[in-house]
Amino acid sequence: MKLYWCPQSRATTAVWLMEEAGVAYERVLIDIRTGAQAVDAYRAINPMMKVPALVDGEAVVAETGAICAYVADRVPEAGLAPAIGDPARGRYLQYLVFASSCIEPAIAQIFTKMEIPSGSAGWGSAERVFNVLEGELQKGDWILGDRFSAADIVIGAGLRFAARQFKLVPERPAFTAYLDRCEARPALQRALAISEAN
Amino acid sequence: MKLYWCPQSRATTAVWLMEEAGVAYERVLIDIRTGAQAVDAYRAINPMMKVPALVDGEAVVAETGAICAYVADRVPEAGLAPAIGDPARGRYLQYLVFASSCIEPAIAQIFTKMEIPSGSAGWGSAERVFNVLEGELQKGDWILGDRFSAADIVIGAGLRFAARQFKLVPERPAFTAYLDRCEARPALQRALAISEAN
Repeated sequence: MKLYWCPQSRATTAVWLMEEAGVAYERVLIDIRTGAQAVDAYRAINPMMKVPALVDGEAVVAETGAICAYVADRVPEAGLAPAIGDPARGRYLQYLVFASSCIEPAIAQIFTKMEIPSGSAGWGSAERVFNVLEGELQKGDWILGDRFSAADIVIGAGLRFAARQFKLVPERPAFTAYLDRCEARPALQRALAISEAN
Repeated sequence: MKLYWCPQSRATTAVWLMEEAGVAYERVLIDIRTGAQAVDAYRAINPMMKVPALVDGEAVVAETGAICAYVADRVPEAGLAPAIGDPARGRYLQYLVFASSCIEPAIAQIFTKMEIPSGSAGWGSAERVFNVLEGELQKGDWILGDRFSAADIVIGAGLRFAARQFKLVPERPAFTAYLDRCEARPALQRALAISEAN
């Protein structure tokens, strides 16, 4: 698999995923600071002109949540996703989608101080999103309880970005403990070292 | 399977999905106009207090994109998702996620007239989101080309809501033709009739 990425960007989430998956992969640098994401060869891979994107033989996939879902199913031996038919797959998919459909816009809402009427946004409100996430994280170490999954990669990376790097999310003990658990994972440590070294 | 829904709401997307899947399912009304989504029994199913949500035996799943991904994999005979290992699964997952990570916040951005610096939002800008979607829909009848999938359900329903019901998205010929194709599907017609009749 080839991962198109850029250091010190949101693409670190996908590097973390690949390090958790434990399969051989090649990182292809798309330097978004010099506009490399806008060249035609890359636009053919991701017309949104964003990193990350993944190429796996004939398969092409962009959007971080989709890359996580794709790789987790493609590498079942890594144990990053409950299989089709496992009841935990419902919550797994829900929180994988929740990361991009609720957490990401909630962070954008805080960042822009946007006022949005209750009921108008699919994510409700930033307050509700973080209350729900806190409730889930108080039930166990990971979003599925005892079991780490690709949903923790998208949620952990998004929360780390917003809470630790940009202080956009108020400190909550459940978030702090969860992010500490994420940061203790060797795969995230490798991903951060790769990002720093490039 | 039990689908928790409300007529004339975004839950119509999930009704369309179930009608396309062609499996027996029970619809359970959660009347969001009387606050039924906030009672404890429903909050245990979806703490975000939104419809739709799906219960399938022990599995519980909320977030429209996740429900679509779940059911499409669970009912392979409906042909709503390329299987794991099929190269088309990459684009399928990408556009399933794109509906909630890009189209939905782009619509919210138009609705709120929010200014957001380029590069700050995961969806880039509303303009870019709709340009990319238009480009994809000019390549074939459906998001995967010849093949209808659950990605068309989330994208078609979201676009229909924004463009036809609320006129939040400028008219583009590719969107009009795509929405006409969606509305010609008997499963969407049944879903709309169910929504109207309740």
